[in-house]
Amino acid sequence: MTSPQRPRKVGLDKLDGLELPAAADMHVHLRDGAMAEVVTPTIRKGGVNTVFVMPNLVPPITTVQHCLSYKAKLQVLEPNVTFLMSLYLHPNISPETVIEAKKAGITGIKSYPHGVTTHSDHGVLSYEPFYPVFSEMERQNMVLNLHGELPPSAGEDITVLNAEEAFLPTLLDLHQKFPKLRIILEHCTSEAALKAVASCGPNVAATITAHHLFLIVDDWAGDPHCFCKPVAKTPADRRALLRTVVSGNSKFFFGTDSAPHSAETKRADRFAAGVFTQPHAVGYVIDALEQGVEMGVLRAEEITRERLVGFLSKFGREFYQVPGESGERIVLEKPTGAVEEVLQSEDGRLQVVPFRQGKMTWGVRFKK
Amino acid sequence: MTSPQRPRKVGLDKLDGLELPAAADMHVHLRDGAMAEVVTPTIRKGGVNTVFVMPNLVPPITTVQHCLSYKAKLQVLEPNVTFLMSLYLHPNISPETVIEAKKAGITGIKSYPHGVTTHSDHGVLSYEPFYPVFSEMERQNMVLNLHGELPPSAGEDITVLNAEEAFLPTLLDLHQKFPKLRIILEHCTSEAALKAVASCGPNVAATITAHHLFLIVDDWAGDPHCFCKPVAKTPADRRALLRTVVSGNSKFFFGTDSAPHSAETKRADRFAAGVFTQPHAVGYVIDALEQGVEMGVLRAEEITRERLVGFLSKFGREFYQVPGESGERIVLEKPTGAVEEVLQSEDGRLQVVPFRQGKMTWGVRFKK
Repeated sequence: MTSPQRPRKVGLDKLDGLELPAAADMHVHLRDGAMAEVVTPTIRKGGVNTVFVMPNLVPPITTVQHCLSYKAKLQVLEPNVTFLMSLYLHPNISPETVIEAKKAGITGIKSYPHGVTTHSDHGVLSYEPFYPVFSEMERQNMVLNLHGELPPSAGEDITVLNAEEAFLPTLLDLHQKFPKLRIILEHCTSEAALKAVASCGPNVAATITAHHLFLIVDDWAGDPHCFCKPVAKTPADRRALLRTVVSGNSKFFFGTDSAPHSAETKRADRFAAGVFTQPHAVGYVIDALEQGVEMGVLRAEEITRERLVGFLSKFGREFYQVPGESGERIVLEKPTGAVEEVLQSEDGRLQVVPFRQGKMTWGVRFKK
Repeated sequence: MTSPQRPRKVGLDKLDGLELPAAADMHVHLRDGAMAEVVTPTIRKGGVNTVFVMPNLVPPITTVQHCLSYKAKLQVLEPNVTFLMSLYLHPNISPETVIEAKKAGITGIKSYPHGVTTHSDHGVLSYEPFYPVFSEMERQNMVLNLHGELPPSAGEDITVLNAEEAFLPTLLDLHQKFPKLRIILEHCTSEAALKAVASCGPNVAATITAHHLFLIVDDWAGDPHCFCKPVAKTPADRRALLRTVVSGNSKFFFGTDSAPHSAETKRADRFAAGVFTQPHAVGYVIDALEQGVEMGVLRAEEITRERLVGFLSKFGREFYQVPGESGERIVLEKPTGAVEEVLQSEDGRLQVVPFRQGKMTWGVRFKK
């Protein structure tokens, strides 16, 4: 990673001052309580005005009422963001819940395989019992969001490294069984996943985070702030992700999976999975593309305004069939400052360490 | 991992009360200062009376004088252990150093590739400049101890996961160039490494740790106390290690790579590599074999006294050509207590978290 001391190389200075539509971050963890109060106000700071909000609170959001009251709280914390909401796939959810959810303006239902990540204790063991739910979702034109990893219980050779690739047959099977169901393979991390999604029809898409554009397995070996699920994988996987971001393929769009945990639970004997990227969402993507150019994985010419607009804003909004960015524009500013060492609650009792703390990052501001 | 609450299954109760020669732990980090004072007295607690001591202090041990004064300090801390000593392969080391070291009773020279683990900043970038040193070691019948991982700088696709396998051609090359040089591939973690060592002549051996008999990548994903270099790898690698321990192949013997770090540096934004196993060295091996039986990887019948003696004591002493265990006997005792949550210095200021803290473990006592 670039240290703040090191002078910047060539990079992407051509993007300095570039105006873009406000970004859509189609996978965010905003939590609740004090953490939501710290995190939610940073959404716009990252250049984002539309988010798709994860439902893995404690307890998980499995009713329309819980979802709407959560949305109302978030809207108070940040009135100038569009919150797209989701339910947590769970035995509580019936086809009737789907109908009710659709009417209430809820956008998607998120599936967590049992036990693979933070607050997935209530996650799915088998998809088959949910087929009636998926059928109703297809009819209601709702989105199914998949955390695409097999749990360790699925086989003695399943590890954090191959759990995503091992899940891909499940993705393809669900797509075949419910071809009209819009499915998103969330936060995909492997070349195999990118290929599987690319091979599907237009109803299957994938989100790509900012941090997986930077990280490989070596980065989370020894650093709790770079540890997340799915884990970052090989250099080849990272290169494939970088290339996909600038490919112009509308099946792939931005979702940070920003997942804040208190510094206390990260500096611990067992630490939680999650990388916190919300306050610099768009900036990190530009940082990563700049690294990609420095590494020779990308050419600066490939990083065009059109491709950035597609990945950061347009493709996600189109897939979700949600209104555009309301004419809001953001402006990129070449790095002049470093990522905060920590963000904290007003009383200072809750601290969160952001990704690449202390490293230089591209600035993003909303145009007035 | 077994929780202390869970009642033990069948397991290896047949080993309860078994007498064995005291164990030889052919790879230990005893550190210096306060840490050495905490760790060194735990060697015998683990059933061990002979250790091969790593030289990666700060600064590293590159002179005979430094090595002997370090040995004297350790001997004061624990008079009833045989300390086999090593130098750190470094430009300071000349063929003359090798001759001097041999005369002083130093056993081996340890090579750390540059930048792969704790205190490897002075490590090797290329072996070729050391060929004259290796020639002299061959003449003097000294042991070359290899940390067998390529550093990330060796190639853009080298990661913590494949660094050991990528090092194997270097091992084979050194063995071919210096066929009479006794070489140990330290703490091997992969099936590929086991096969490579098995394929070499009798002058190449390998150590196997206790913790790699338990761990896979999933275990250090989220747990700083299970993170070490080389990192634990796949379930298949773990199974291969377990099978090798009970194989009776004298090329493979015990070396814990016990590597204590303060709890403070483990619960941190960047945490150090190393698993601390010294106080329960032999107990952990029996625990792991018991898990191997429970998992169906091993059969209880394979775990004979002869195989345990070979792996834990005989093969290592023979390879190092050092005197036996002085008639000292240890006795195995089936688990009745749990691993300490923490070990600490007398003033309580230095704390170290042992591997499998709080978990049940086989007991080991010296027979009086």
